[in-house]
Amino acid sequence: MGKITTSIITIGDELLIGQTIDTNSAWMAQELNALGIWVHRRVAIGDVREDILSNLAKEAELSDIVLITGGLGPTADDITKPTLCDYFQTRLVQDEATLQRVLHIFESRGLPILERNVAQAMVPESCTVIANERGTAPGMWFEKDGKIYVSMPGVPHEMKGIMESYVLPQLAAHFNTPAVVHRTLITSGMGESFVAERLTAFEAKLPPHIKLAYLPSYSLLKLRLTAFGADKVTSAAELTVYFHELMALLPDITVTDQDISIGEVLGQLLKERGKTVGTAESCTGGQISTWITAIPGSSAYYKGSAITYANEMKMKLLGVKSETLQAYGAVSEETVTEMLAGALQLLETDYAIAVSGIMGPDGGTPEKPVGTVWVAVGSREKMTAIKYHLRYDRERNTQMTAVYAMNELRKLILE
Amino acid sequence: MGKITTSIITIGDELLIGQTIDTNSAWMAQELNALGIWVHRRVAIGDVREDILSNLAKEAELSDIVLITGGLGPTADDITKPTLCDYFQTRLVQDEATLQRVLHIFESRGLPILERNVAQAMVPESCTVIANERGTAPGMWFEKDGKIYVSMPGVPHEMKGIMESYVLPQLAAHFNTPAVVHRTLITSGMGESFVAERLTAFEAKLPPHIKLAYLPSYSLLKLRLTAFGADKVTSAAELTVYFHELMALLPDITVTDQDISIGEVLGQLLKERGKTVGTAESCTGGQISTWITAIPGSSAYYKGSAITYANEMKMKLLGVKSETLQAYGAVSEETVTEMLAGALQLLETDYAIAVSGIMGPDGGTPEKPVGTVWVAVGSREKMTAIKYHLRYDRERNTQMTAVYAMNELRKLILE
Repeated sequence: MGKITTSIITIGDELLIGQTIDTNSAWMAQELNALGIWVHRRVAIGDVREDILSNLAKEAELSDIVLITGGLGPTADDITKPTLCDYFQTRLVQDEATLQRVLHIFESRGLPILERNVAQAMVPESCTVIANERGTAPGMWFEKDGKIYVSMPGVPHEMKGIMESYVLPQLAAHFNTPAVVHRTLITSGMGESFVAERLTAFEAKLPPHIKLAYLPSYSLLKLRLTAFGADKVTSAAELTVYFHELMALLPDITVTDQDISIGEVLGQLLKERGKTVGTAESCTGGQISTWITAIPGSSAYYKGSAITYANEMKMKLLGVKSETLQAYGAVSEETVTEMLAGALQLLETDYAIAVSGIMGPDGGTPEKPVGTVWVAVGSREKMTAIKYHLRYDRERNTQMTAVYAMNELRKLILE
Repeated sequence: MGKITTSIITIGDELLIGQTIDTNSAWMAQELNALGIWVHRRVAIGDVREDILSNLAKEAELSDIVLITGGLGPTADDITKPTLCDYFQTRLVQDEATLQRVLHIFESRGLPILERNVAQAMVPESCTVIANERGTAPGMWFEKDGKIYVSMPGVPHEMKGIMESYVLPQLAAHFNTPAVVHRTLITSGMGESFVAERLTAFEAKLPPHIKLAYLPSYSLLKLRLTAFGADKVTSAAELTVYFHELMALLPDITVTDQDISIGEVLGQLLKERGKTVGTAESCTGGQISTWITAIPGSSAYYKGSAITYANEMKMKLLGVKSETLQAYGAVSEETVTEMLAGALQLLETDYAIAVSGIMGPDGGTPEKPVGTVWVAVGSREKMTAIKYHLRYDRERNTQMTAVYAMNELRKLILE
């Protein structure tokens, strides 16, 4: 049984000039992978008729499935639909169901309907129209010479709706796919090459249908074990044996045995223990609280934060002493420790995280260069403070600090 | 003079199974575009020797420049360098400068050096080695049959360092590139098709070397005008005339005439006027403060935030009345207005933003379904509160609320 292969073609100048980051392809690949369908090529091209035609032909030669996103908006630069008609040797006709849907959307919002909106209901005659519950441009399913093509709008939540409601179930029904099973272990505190060194013997004895990948992500390292096989249950059982062996080799650096964010790892731990958390953030500006509250149900363990960017707010909200700030500065063990104690009192939580640092590009001094960060985590009974020296840009320094700080609290809770 | 064209090849299974979102390509395209180099194809492929070989040949046929990222880490699944040797008919040799750099990195961190780290200093003999100031894997510049190939690590900040220090200046020197100039207008409050309708006559008279693109981004719409020409000064001057015409057609919905984030727009406005801001966030969990502080220098106008996820924190920190919460609930005009007043007093700022809502997937009721959000913005003198009904997932609802709220404050300040 061969692999079922997919090419993803994204259409749109905005992807090529870099104004938009392509998040669609990653999501599509994850969903297809879960069905045992392998995305082996992704191609991004501009809004150019000849390029669309030649890439459709080329990708259909290499893959069983060609998924196309983008180029279907209501504005004038869109040429995808006429080009699809040329490729599939068909013509545009009006789709009554789509027309009704478009009319309904505009009426329900009290907006006048424009010619270009009506044009959204024109579709190639030979396709199966896929309803778009989240927008005006429908999806289109084509079959030609044994290959499947699906054209979808590029707006992420519209594409996802069309994939989930129709494309994924149809592809699952259409192909007898091999099973692909993943398990991911997330580690911290040891570099990729040192982990690899420890896993040399383990990797050497992996059978060819089980693969290990190293995926660094901020300060964390994801180890993904993947098994390919004839059926999901057997593959999962075999994978579990190897995964437990992997876990047994890395107990000292394991963060979680699930493929979840550090915010979710920390949240699960707090929930299990019935404990609460809050944050006192200066340089991270709310990034830690944003990531904690990104998890549905976080209100069970998260109560609030004091984002104290200005020193006067560190004093007023968190009770940091004026003398401490004067003697040691805002970025110091002394200040961050007082911030932590203040947060525990203000927010009335079991645990808290406090951070203060210099994220750059400005604000550094010879003594405290850009990238100097103090983190304190703990409870009323136990606190720890750590200094970091980060070397990246403002955004990355902020995000790494947030990951480090949440991981330090995780470790303290488990101690 | 023809366009100088580039293909970007990203190598790595992690991109194909969707575990990693490709942010490199967008950044590379932006930087190349600024030099007048056009990225007309992006291809993502797996760690497979034959795929790498065939794609190198194919992309070199179609483009003047082939930029390759990924596949150069220290762990075992990397096969890129031997494959590059096959393609360029050369062999791996040790590069002394890279070796010294790798040894220095490990020594300075007090780490032992491993065989696989030393291997990072092995490079194809025919390439020009590009120093990687931010990691162990060097960049490699090849020339063959008049085409340029550059192989770089996939870690974003390492790739960026190599591009900025060497690749971009070398490409600029090597090619006599056409000028490409962009200007971007960001609008809010009017759908893409209605804006397009208003711009019909304007678009019709644009010369063929000037293009208008519609790029929706959350609740905002970016209108990007691009001019291609022989030299930058002439193109920029011509573009300015059309850009001013565009602005004159959309004064009522313009957010900014720069391609910057709403956080930066708001920050510029506050800085100009010498005013300060703080936030009181419930459902956004710190997203607004994170975006405000993402701007370097934001300490000039941002003082702090109270993230009051729990109702008790709304009362304790912001002085929201218990009776208000009981009578109207946390997601109500009354609560969000009291949060705003409380934030102005607590944070001692000129302006504040307050938000409370239900982001989903749980927590909705028939009366207040998921996606119901109240936003209040204002000062001691003037306040406004608005209710939204969002229809997306938790992450997108949060981000849209943050954009809406910042934009409402912008409008209120300008009133």
